[in-house]
Amino acid sequence: MTVILSLDEIKKCIGLDKQLIPIIEEAFKNLAQDKVSMPPILRLDIEEYHGESDVKAAYIQGLDSYAIKVASGFFNNPKIGLPSSNGLMILLDSKTGVIKSILLDKGYLTDIRTAIAGAIAAKYLSNPDSKKVGIIGAGIQAKLQLEALSLVRNIDTAFIWARKKDKVSEFIADIKKLNINIQACLLPEEVVNQCEILVTTTPSKSPLIKNEWLKKGLHITAMGSDAEQKNELDPLIIKDCDLYIPDSLSQTKILGELNHAIKNNLVSSNQNYNELGEVILDPSLGRKRKEDITVCDLTGTGVQDTAIARQTYEIAMHLKLGTSVD
Amino acid sequence: MTVILSLDEIKKCIGLDKQLIPIIEEAFKNLAQDKVSMPPILRLDIEEYHGESDVKAAYIQGLDSYAIKVASGFFNNPKIGLPSSNGLMILLDSKTGVIKSILLDKGYLTDIRTAIAGAIAAKYLSNPDSKKVGIIGAGIQAKLQLEALSLVRNIDTAFIWARKKDKVSEFIADIKKLNINIQACLLPEEVVNQCEILVTTTPSKSPLIKNEWLKKGLHITAMGSDAEQKNELDPLIIKDCDLYIPDSLSQTKILGELNHAIKNNLVSSNQNYNELGEVILDPSLGRKRKEDITVCDLTGTGVQDTAIARQTYEIAMHLKLGTSVD
Repeated sequence: MTVILSLDEIKKCIGLDKQLIPIIEEAFKNLAQDKVSMPPILRLDIEEYHGESDVKAAYIQGLDSYAIKVASGFFNNPKIGLPSSNGLMILLDSKTGVIKSILLDKGYLTDIRTAIAGAIAAKYLSNPDSKKVGIIGAGIQAKLQLEALSLVRNIDTAFIWARKKDKVSEFIADIKKLNINIQACLLPEEVVNQCEILVTTTPSKSPLIKNEWLKKGLHITAMGSDAEQKNELDPLIIKDCDLYIPDSLSQTKILGELNHAIKNNLVSSNQNYNELGEVILDPSLGRKRKEDITVCDLTGTGVQDTAIARQTYEIAMHLKLGTSVD
Repeated sequence: MTVILSLDEIKKCIGLDKQLIPIIEEAFKNLAQDKVSMPPILRLDIEEYHGESDVKAAYIQGLDSYAIKVASGFFNNPKIGLPSSNGLMILLDSKTGVIKSILLDKGYLTDIRTAIAGAIAAKYLSNPDSKKVGIIGAGIQAKLQLEALSLVRNIDTAFIWARKKDKVSEFIADIKKLNINIQACLLPEEVVNQCEILVTTTPSKSPLIKNEWLKKGLHITAMGSDAEQKNELDPLIIKDCDLYIPDSLSQTKILGELNHAIKNNLVSSNQNYNELGEVILDPSLGRKRKEDITVCDLTGTGVQDTAIARQTYEIAMHLKLGTSVD
């Protein structure tokens, strides 16, 4: 029997919650220790409709289940009142391949595990007394990243810039419950000038953040770029920063900000960097000095999906949720 | 709403039926005409349990839906009474990425579309008066390939060889309904000596069929090899045959029999071959003379999955089958 979980049921199991931090940290640690089979992402483009489907998969050694995830982005959808993101996760039995569950999360679990990765990046790389956050972009991740940062740092003020001003107003209304001062900025530079942690969350195809704007002590989490042509940071930032940490080096070389630094011959494609999981295993590999500029490059990994799908399924079984189909 | 279809419901919609031939032919034609986005297969190995999950996907331009398929093989399963194959297909809306349906087919639709591809290969490449079939292997595809051949040729006798003799007895019992004479052979060579169409259906990692055994006029469909290390035919066969036709040239170079001919320096990796879809579009590209030896190399393509998933969904909607989940 396969258990089908609807989005409503999934939301009863999983929210943006501090308890998810150690679960996603464990996934990154496994990835860093090579305890994982994680093939390259399958990407299908539907150019006709400005759409794409990505498939990610990861098996973590020793675990009794693994996930395969389909995540779609159809960028004309908002025009017809549909969200651009969609997708599902499939949970399979590691010993038999039997499909235990299908999580019809429509991208919700991806949103959550991505935000938690942002919290983890800030936990290990930003200065512990950081209170001021800059957010570039005003979509769902802009909100969730800010909320996730509040799980690990005492954030009192957020500065936001986004291309679409109506989205900024929406963002400010949505984020009220967090009890954080919000200031909308007219330029990205204004955001960067005033924050201690910067999170970039856009699908931009040209850099929005310049190297010369960066102040000492800043931590940047760049999570918008998850495809070859996407690029939010001036590639010089990757070269000049004191510490660059990818979620998965093999992925950021192709899909992340690092990709553009390599293409611009600023960084060698053979250059080695510690991954986020290595920093979690040994925090001394993280920020060294208060004045360091640190960058975490998040492209999204299959191990995060496997971790959150397993957690959701476990809670759903406990709560006796789902529809069984043979 | 997503419509979940169980295996029982899927079997009410689709069987090994002549009507599927033009549907799968159309898919191959689209592939040959570059009307398709079909990324490389994602393959996740679970070495600990001798298992693997493959993901295939294809979008055919102009169609309102496309499929993403997960197909797993866990080769220890028979020891615990489970089939080694498993999987599902996901049908997505081409304009929005919305998930229309999940087909919990456990590999059934893959079995059917693979057998139909074998029928199509024989239809265009074997001599029309072929009556004698040789089957190597005695698994599910051995049975289905023989049954599918009966849709396009007047088969009166089948010769079979497989490594496991108990599987051969099972095969013979299962195939009775087809009203075909069956002869079990002690050696693969005996099979090859007596047939006009040969279908190889094993996961062998070393060649079972030697070049010097082949008689003039033989057509071979090699459908067992769908992974880099799998190899059923003496690589010399690919070099020496009169006509070699891949289902997808980019795939057979990596996963099919062609891969081994290239690795053995018998064929250049730049050598061009017409694909099955091109032969369907222009049958004069198929068999030229009665005495030609022809080979069709089937690795399985995402376009076949998209075609059969669409067909299943359409019939299921007509029959009002399935469970809707939001």
